[in-house]
Amino acid sequence: MLRKVIAAAVLATLVAGPAQAQQASSGVSPFVINTLFIVFCGVLVMWMTAGFAMLEAGFVREKNVVTQCAKNIGLFAIASTAFILSGYGFMFPGGSWILPGIIGFNGAIEINDVVEGGSNFVGRGHAGAADIFFQSMFCVAVVSIVSGAIAERVKLMSFFIFAAILTAVIYPIQASWAWGGGFLATDLGFRDLAGSTVVHVVGGTAALTGALFLGARSGRFVDGKKVALGNYSLPIATVGTLILWMGWYGFNAGSYLSFSTDADASNVARIFLNTNLAAAGGVIVAGCVSYLREFRFDLSFMLNGALGGLVAITAEPLFPTPFWAFAVGMGGGLIIFWATQVLDYFKIDDVVGAIPVHLFCGVWGTIAAGFTNPDASVLGQLSSVLIVITYVGITTSLVWIALKETIGIRVSAAKEEYGIDKSDFVLET
Amino acid sequence: MLRKVIAAAVLATLVAGPAQAQQASSGVSPFVINTLFIVFCGVLVMWMTAGFAMLEAGFVREKNVVTQCAKNIGLFAIASTAFILSGYGFMFPGGSWILPGIIGFNGAIEINDVVEGGSNFVGRGHAGAADIFFQSMFCVAVVSIVSGAIAERVKLMSFFIFAAILTAVIYPIQASWAWGGGFLATDLGFRDLAGSTVVHVVGGTAALTGALFLGARSGRFVDGKKVALGNYSLPIATVGTLILWMGWYGFNAGSYLSFSTDADASNVARIFLNTNLAAAGGVIVAGCVSYLREFRFDLSFMLNGALGGLVAITAEPLFPTPFWAFAVGMGGGLIIFWATQVLDYFKIDDVVGAIPVHLFCGVWGTIAAGFTNPDASVLGQLSSVLIVITYVGITTSLVWIALKETIGIRVSAAKEEYGIDKSDFVLET
Amino acid sequence: MLRKVIAAAVLATLVAGPAQAQQASSGVSPFVINTLFIVFCGVLVMWMTAGFAMLEAGFVREKNVVTQCAKNIGLFAIASTAFILSGYGFMFPGGSWILPGIIGFNGAIEINDVVEGGSNFVGRGHAGAADIFFQSMFCVAVVSIVSGAIAERVKLMSFFIFAAILTAVIYPIQASWAWGGGFLATDLGFRDLAGSTVVHVVGGTAALTGALFLGARSGRFVDGKKVALGNYSLPIATVGTLILWMGWYGFNAGSYLSFSTDADASNVARIFLNTNLAAAGGVIVAGCVSYLREFRFDLSFMLNGALGGLVAITAEPLFPTPFWAFAVGMGGGLIIFWATQVLDYFKIDDVVGAIPVHLFCGVWGTIAAGFTNPDASVLGQLSSVLIVITYVGITTSLVWIALKETIGIRVSAAKEEYGIDKSDFVLET
Repeated sequence: MLRKVIAAAVLATLVAGPAQAQQASSGVSPFVINTLFIVFCGVLVMWMTAGFAMLEAGFVREKNVVTQCAKNIGLFAIASTAFILSGYGFMFPGGSWILPGIIGFNGAIEINDVVEGGSNFVGRGHAGAADIFFQSMFCVAVVSIVSGAIAERVKLMSFFIFAAILTAVIYPIQASWAWGGGFLATDLGFRDLAGSTVVHVVGGTAALTGALFLGARSGRFVDGKKVALGNYSLPIATVGTLILWMGWYGFNAGSYLSFSTDADASNVARIFLNTNLAAAGGVIVAGCVSYLREFRFDLSFMLNGALGGLVAITAEPLFPTPFWAFAVGMGGGLIIFWATQVLDYFKIDDVVGAIPVHLFCGVWGTIAAGFTNPDASVLGQLSSVLIVITYVGITTSLVWIALKETIGIRVSAAKEEYGIDKSDFVLET
Repeated sequence: MLRKVIAAAVLATLVAGPAQAQQASSGVSPFVINTLFIVFCGVLVMWMTAGFAMLEAGFVREKNVVTQCAKNIGLFAIASTAFILSGYGFMFPGGSWILPGIIGFNGAIEINDVVEGGSNFVGRGHAGAADIFFQSMFCVAVVSIVSGAIAERVKLMSFFIFAAILTAVIYPIQASWAWGGGFLATDLGFRDLAGSTVVHVVGGTAALTGALFLGARSGRFVDGKKVALGNYSLPIATVGTLILWMGWYGFNAGSYLSFSTDADASNVARIFLNTNLAAAGGVIVAGCVSYLREFRFDLSFMLNGALGGLVAITAEPLFPTPFWAFAVGMGGGLIIFWATQVLDYFKIDDVVGAIPVHLFCGVWGTIAAGFTNPDASVLGQLSSVLIVITYVGITTSLVWIALKETIGIRVSAAKEEYGIDKSDFVLET
Repeated sequence: MLRKVIAAAVLATLVAGPAQAQQASSGVSPFVINTLFIVFCGVLVMWMTAGFAMLEAGFVREKNVVTQCAKNIGLFAIASTAFILSGYGFMFPGGSWILPGIIGFNGAIEINDVVEGGSNFVGRGHAGAADIFFQSMFCVAVVSIVSGAIAERVKLMSFFIFAAILTAVIYPIQASWAWGGGFLATDLGFRDLAGSTVVHVVGGTAALTGALFLGARSGRFVDGKKVALGNYSLPIATVGTLILWMGWYGFNAGSYLSFSTDADASNVARIFLNTNLAAAGGVIVAGCVSYLREFRFDLSFMLNGALGGLVAITAEPLFPTPFWAFAVGMGGGLIIFWATQVLDYFKIDDVVGAIPVHLFCGVWGTIAAGFTNPDASVLGQLSSVLIVITYVGITTSLVWIALKETIGIRVSAAKEEYGIDKSDFVLET
């Protein structure tokens, strides 16, 4: 029956034509405003895909930049599809737990609901399709993080298979622990509003296992020292960072999922303000550190400072005062400086600095939420993030091993030397 | 009198200042939310102009990239102005038909309404100025499509004149057939929610006639085979595609023109989800086809796959289930592969692949709507799109012929060889 | 107590989880819709930061492009922080005038309000945090304008200090004169809806004093004639301009600060339409002028024509009819042509053309508002803009002098010759 209601509503608009559409109702419902808020935030989160693509295109060498773009456009398509096929069902199991609080699967029922009606009209604050759209855009970010760290050497086919498994199964299962009523939220009091852990630590951990199994690019570490290998275009990396900064407002604010009361509106507005201040804090501390060390402002470090500040505020962008939001972001900038040295010590090659930004600052933001969010505890936050790192570390390692033993995960040395673009791509314009 | 009402409203805000603005009303009307929805969707559609500009700047050769940018910024200004001068009046004739259902003109009355008040306050679901803004952004897309196909050889002045005629007269007259109460909608039951035919087939057909009258770039076909001529920057083409993908949410969703009831909100949210899935389907099929043929992922093909999927879902982004939306997009990706070979066979030179994407996928999407939209028939869709192709084919050919016989449409061979930028432009920073 | 209300609201959402969030209220308030409108407009204004960054990265030479990007990401962080620390308090003094109508300071009270509650819930039309967020993004634009004009020779550290002083003190004090209940608005009837004077003339004047104290780049003027020094990438400058064009909708519309009644919605929709037409008018006149002079379309001039049109309509984007909005924009395009020659005559080196665009077109737009806004007078507008130019000219000169006499404001001749990027930056990817 609902199908008919939808059809009738559509029909009315189509038949009437844009100029004659009439409005019978006398007011606007919370459902409407929440849905509007969420779809537009979803567009901002989608836009982060372009931000990651440009950030990574800017940081890789010119000989691999076409491959990197193909990787990013491909992962977007794969992740947003795989997540809808099974990811959403794992992420929000509803009552359908297999192991209670740990793993459940709600089938494709949410998708059917969108089509056939039901829970998108009754008993929730916004349209079901808006929720699926928003969450599928979130999911893409997880894979984009991995893409940057392991650039310039991973086999594209292996990466795409990895992306599908990560978004169809690995990511959504742990997301259910925090956001789908699972054990982290209920048993450990875990709080992670927009995903410092659920999105960024997961992406960062998968990036770390990828970087470990792949090894460094040839020529990256010579005589125990890191060598700068050059990059395609820092202005393009800059616009990528500003795209991410812009999209992050939607990432953090949209996670509040509601905009219907005056209190909601004020809270969400605070999230916009705090998100911006954390990014600013990250940039300023990165600029100061680089200036104090070398009397110059290091653009790459400032860009990653912005992202580190953004990752750090993501777990709790609402409760901090503006001052604390700024401080949380400054913490992110400092952590990147230190974490980059840790990675260099272990000769882990992370092309864009994704692991310091997303894994290390994600852990920091998760712990910081224990201080700023009165409903969270530092211990609960810390144990939750460690559980997630362990889970993602093991599962992604298994996937990398399986791929390595079958189709392989690294391009040949000759291909890497010559550049993947020209050995793999022939431009056909 | 209304003028005074507006003035008073503005004044109150200005005098009171931002901190003291008071709200007397007790709720928000459907008119308000619809207008908010439409202006923000209009911003997303405007953003597609930047997407086309970057896509095309990325695909042309470096020697013509400045000209291509000038073409895109110029057509944006010309199209959005020409459409407001006369296009909107042709597109929505209201009762003012000259030939009933075929051609009508409502003068500049809608624009006067915006200024003097009237229909923007009463009897319709959203502000008149919002409608004009949104539709004028739509209109720009039609010309942007042409711009890409005929790049690197067209005379800029001729193109700008063509753009003005296309948007002031040719496009809006056929748009009235589907959206302004004309004969395609009323007599053939034609349904095209966001313009697979009305926008994309029209742009694609105009691109085809332009490519035919201009001929191929020198060196494009040698001994009957297509030669890849190189391009300025595929990362810039990638961000252009992602900009288009982002803007397309507003393009398709905004065409619903209403967001005021729970059913509207749910329907629009489905449009966001389906639009994304169609794009993903196009990318995935393009990636698979190129991998199966050559064991590599072809970035250019994947970018056009995304656009083909988006064009295909545009006629009917609401009724399909997510699965069918994905399938419609996959169809788009396959059609591009086949259509490109057709164009090559006929030695038609389409610099960015606009004709496969917008004309061929537009036809496919229009027909597909006959299957998914219960109010449309395949026969009605097919006959409608053929009528539009015939009309646009003839009218744009006449314009190209008139331009060719007067000021000419193609740059000199010497200029083409040397590059239009340096022979035509002297940078004056 | 309010703190608890916020906490409770957040908690309810978090505990319930996204799928179960319930909405108890039966409608949506004007406060909610205004806040939603303002935060999304704030995102568009933030996006202008990326527009300025790309415009400027495109126009500087390749040897300085990394520095230019670092300058833009740094100024964003500094300006949005400094403005929140003290700028907002200076800009909206409330009752706390020190010199009535001239200078006042409301402390950090607005920020505390956001955290502890109070004026963000009662007695105003939108959330306090939304207001602070929006205004802080506005403030960034002022500094971005300066950044472009004085590129390729200013010391980064001096520029950052200048940015902090400009946004913490100089800009907000004069902004209070027009928007915070100060003497320009109350005594001279000054009207400047979105800041042709308050933002653009201020930025343009600061750019002018900067260019004067710094002097021209070496090699810019040879034998009394201007020399084109080349630029990094005009496609990147083009996307920068289109980003600014997009963001400007939010800049002008958001300044209306209200979207809750049908009249508000219609007025704001007119602002979208008029803003676009002014930009189009600027592009078209720039294209025509360059074609009439040299039989070619000059991309750089067309890009600045768009920006000049946008600056000109900013003072009054609501009252003009579409025709007059277009004409105001055309005036902007003409003024840039003339103002560029004035700067060349005085051998003032403005890398991106920021002074013609923002200062000269800002003055034009301010005066034009005297004709189109029935509440403004030409004399009041003219005297107001002269007062602001004098104030900003003197105060910024004092800052430049202080910086010049201490740490210096210009890089060494050797550094300028070699390129600031390589002498100052070592890429550490």
